[in-house]
Amino acid sequence: MSTQRADSGAPARRPVGRPRQTEPSEDHLRRLGEIIETGARVFHEHGYDSGTLEDVATALDLRRASLYHYLRNKAQLLYFIFDRALTTSLFRLDEIAQITAPHERLTALVAHQVQMVSGDPSLFAVFFDNRPRLDGIFQERIAGKEREYVCRVTDMIAALSESGELDVVDATYAAHAFIGMTSWTYKWFDPAVDASADTVATMLSLIGATGRRTDSR
Amino acid sequence: MSTQRADSGAPARRPVGRPRQTEPSEDHLRRLGEIIETGARVFHEHGYDSGTLEDVATALDLRRASLYHYLRNKAQLLYFIFDRALTTSLFRLDEIAQITAPHERLTALVAHQVQMVSGDPSLFAVFFDNRPRLDGIFQERIAGKEREYVCRVTDMIAALSESGELDVVDATYAAHAFIGMTSWTYKWFDPAVDASADTVATMLSLIGATGRRTDSR
Repeated sequence: MSTQRADSGAPARRPVGRPRQTEPSEDHLRRLGEIIETGARVFHEHGYDSGTLEDVATALDLRRASLYHYLRNKAQLLYFIFDRALTTSLFRLDEIAQITAPHERLTALVAHQVQMVSGDPSLFAVFFDNRPRLDGIFQERIAGKEREYVCRVTDMIAALSESGELDVVDATYAAHAFIGMTSWTYKWFDPAVDASADTVATMLSLIGATGRRTDSR
Repeated sequence: MSTQRADSGAPARRPVGRPRQTEPSEDHLRRLGEIIETGARVFHEHGYDSGTLEDVATALDLRRASLYHYLRNKAQLLYFIFDRALTTSLFRLDEIAQITAPHERLTALVAHQVQMVSGDPSLFAVFFDNRPRLDGIFQERIAGKEREYVCRVTDMIAALSESGELDVVDATYAAHAFIGMTSWTYKWFDPAVDASADTVATMLSLIGATGRRTDSR
């Protein structure tokens, strides 16, 4: 039924049965994004085990069958939520690593974590609270990205230690402590009563500048 | 049917229908303790929504009906798990507050958190991951104990700041950061590959001695 264009110079024929597009369309990705966002909200409200794909479809005013164009099952939706949280987390680390002044780099790192977590509370609550619910098939891929995240924060802390900004005994433990301190905001930070995420980030970065070698006062 | 003893000098009669013992027996408490421990393991393995009282009873080689001598329903078991975690957390804080040397007090506080969390991983994973699943009836009581815990850590940090051991901008934010940093061990600490909980506690306490005014090197 589809009209096939034969661009000269490019291979005109694809193997039979292979989908035409290997990359999902922008529209598909946008829709999948909405499903992930809604899924995070549903699992946050009802819990992962009690929340259903039916709930997700209803919230989006879709038939459940339509969801299967985007995902295979609920386990895969949880995987997508995890992947979204980690991709978001990793996204700005490269940029931050480029900041040359060590103290600014540290402040940016804290701000990044705090703003990211407080900016999407449902997504991160589901991500942090449902690690044991992740299906075995997806476990390895997520564990890989998690290791990458910890490694990159560890490298940044080691660099801050070398530059004299921090004085840490073990960069890996310091990275875990740092990630814990900043991620924990999802438990207590409430924009309605607490200072702005920016202020909290500044305060945590003062705390995070642990055992700084030079007295900053 | 029961034989009523009339001890002279003591009020001999209780109002009709009121249980004879207002305090549960030691045996009852011991058994309840086992149920809480097993419940934490079951919810940790299967998730709170999927785990059942049937699973708990089976793991303890009990009939489910027997559980109802100790609790009313699954929601109450989750409440007991939360209460146990918080009671454990609060228990040593008074002792730690008595330590006079500020640096030792700080080290003891970190060690307390890390050892407690790593010492009972199922209990604390269920406690940290299932806050939104807690039933409304129990919510207020747990929230009260949580506030008490944060307040007491805040007071200790404020005292450490006054004594010059720490230099914090806001003791409440510092308390949240501290609790986050140390509680997060439940996510990554693995006694099989990581240093001992003691070593981790020492390392985190070096990190936790944040912005210490005097250079300790």
